[in-house]
This record gives sequence, structure tokens and C-alpha cells, in this order.
Amino acid sequence: MIEKVHHIAIAVRNLEEQARFYREQLGLTVREIQEVPSEGVRIAFIPCGETLIELVEPLSPDHTVARFIEKRGEGLHHICLQTPNIRSALATLKERGCTLLSEEPKPGADGLIAFVHPKSSGGVLVELVEPPAWREGGSA
Amino acid sequence: MIEKVHHIAIAVRNLEEQARFYREQLGLTVREIQEVPSEGVRIAFIPCGETLIELVEPLSPDHTVARFIEKRGEGLHHICLQTPNIRSALATLKERGCTLLSEEPKPGADGLIAFVHPKSSGGVLVELVEPPAWREGGSA
Repeated sequence: MIEKVHHIAIAVRNLEEQARFYREQLGLTVREIQEVPSEGVRIAFIPCGETLIELVEPLSPDHTVARFIEKRGEGLHHICLQTPNIRSALATLKERGCTLLSEEPKPGADGLIAFVHPKSSGGVLVELVEPPAWREGGSA
Repeated sequence: MIEKVHHIAIAVRNLEEQARFYREQLGLTVREIQEVPSEGVRIAFIPCGETLIELVEPLSPDHTVARFIEKRGEGLHHICLQTPNIRSALATLKERGCTLLSEEPKPGADGLIAFVHPKSSGGVLVELVEPPAWREGGSA
């Protein structure tokens, strides 16, 4: 059901500033910053092996990521696990007693996405993603 | 310098309880629980693609992971990036202005490890690991 860790999301106040650690100190490649107004965020993906590190900067102070930063500071926000079939994965999780934040997947920055409620996953916000069918082997 | 995400560590109060989500709901394999008295924790590794999810349960209430849970609740604790040469990586990071939690690597559960100070990495606790030389291609 789960193929790999698709990305690890990090909540940041300022994308350019935090990208510096990954690019200039760790020597990783920071892909072009994308503004995703529909989600109210700016993001940057940093490939790291088969996984992406995703920096997420909220565009407004009432965004859920801004409230997360306000409460807990910048840092690890969620993990996203890749599945070949998100509808089937969601149905299986529900059948196994898992609470989902949404029962229907929606289009995300890199395929169809949905979230598991952190109360079902030990306080960890877990996203699932089914990458677009045209891409083989994932996005990293 | 960085090859991949070696593991993502999750702080938990009760290892067996939180392992259930990964094993019974996501269908992943939870490896045998290891008690690491020298570190004051019990851990379980869950392979997920080339990365491991690591559940970490503190053995005493004054452990740094216990204090983390007390303050922020269970959840994402740190990420660990794999490097082929940890001494060289630490020297490079220091040269590039990064603050390290320790300048000398020490033996961890899976090779030599060291931590970057979260103030240098945007609030994210970043561990580096150099897996044992006999293992090719990492531990996942």
C-alpha cells in the first residue's frame, strides 16, 4: 500500500532564509519556489535521495501552517507517504479503523492527496499522495 | 555530501501502541524493538522505501525525548540524513558557519552519528549518520 516517503514538510517563516541551510551548508539542490495560492502557501522542494524535503511558508497569518509556527515554532510539520492508489488506500485505512481528515482525495502540488487525522497516527500529521500516472518511480 | 534521508524519528509515549498504526493500518513492517540503555530509549525501525521511520520511546521521564513529549506532545522529533563520511561532513558544515551540537561523531544504533544545532537548521533537529562501512546501500 505504501511505496516510500514522498516528502517531509517543514514549516518555515521565510522560505529563502531557511533554504540557505539546505543549499549552502548541506549542498543540496533547492528547486524553484512555487507559489500555490489555492493552498495559501509558497513551497520549495529539495530532493534528498528518493525523498523530497518540502519547505512550506504560509502566505497569511491565519493559515494553519502560520498557526502551527505561532504555537510550536518553525520545524517538522508532516510526512507524506506515497501510494500507487490513493482511493484504495483510503478505503483500506477507513476499514481498519483509521480516522481521515477527508474521505475524498484532492489535487495537490504533485498528484492526488489526502490526510490521516493525527489522532489516528500518534500525533503525526500523515499525508498520502498518489503521483500522476504519467510519472514512473516518483518525483524525487 | 548527503545521500538520502536515513530515518525520520517520531517521539512516542508507548512504542507498541503507536507501532500499531504503521503495522496494522498502513501495512508496513515494524522491525524488532531494540532497547538502547546507553541512549535511554527503546526504538523500533519501520522500513519505508529507502528511508526508515523510527519510533522512539524514552525510558525515563527526565529524558530529552520525554521532555519534548511533555512540551509538544507525541510527534515528529528529528530527521537523519545519511552521509558517506561524517567527519568530512561535520568539518564542511562547521566551515560553512553551521553550529553543531557535538563536533565529534559518536556510535549510534546504525553507525556514527552527530547532530546539527536546530538554530542552524530552522528549528529542525537534524542528525547525520555514516552507516557502517560493511553495509552497502544503507540500512533500509
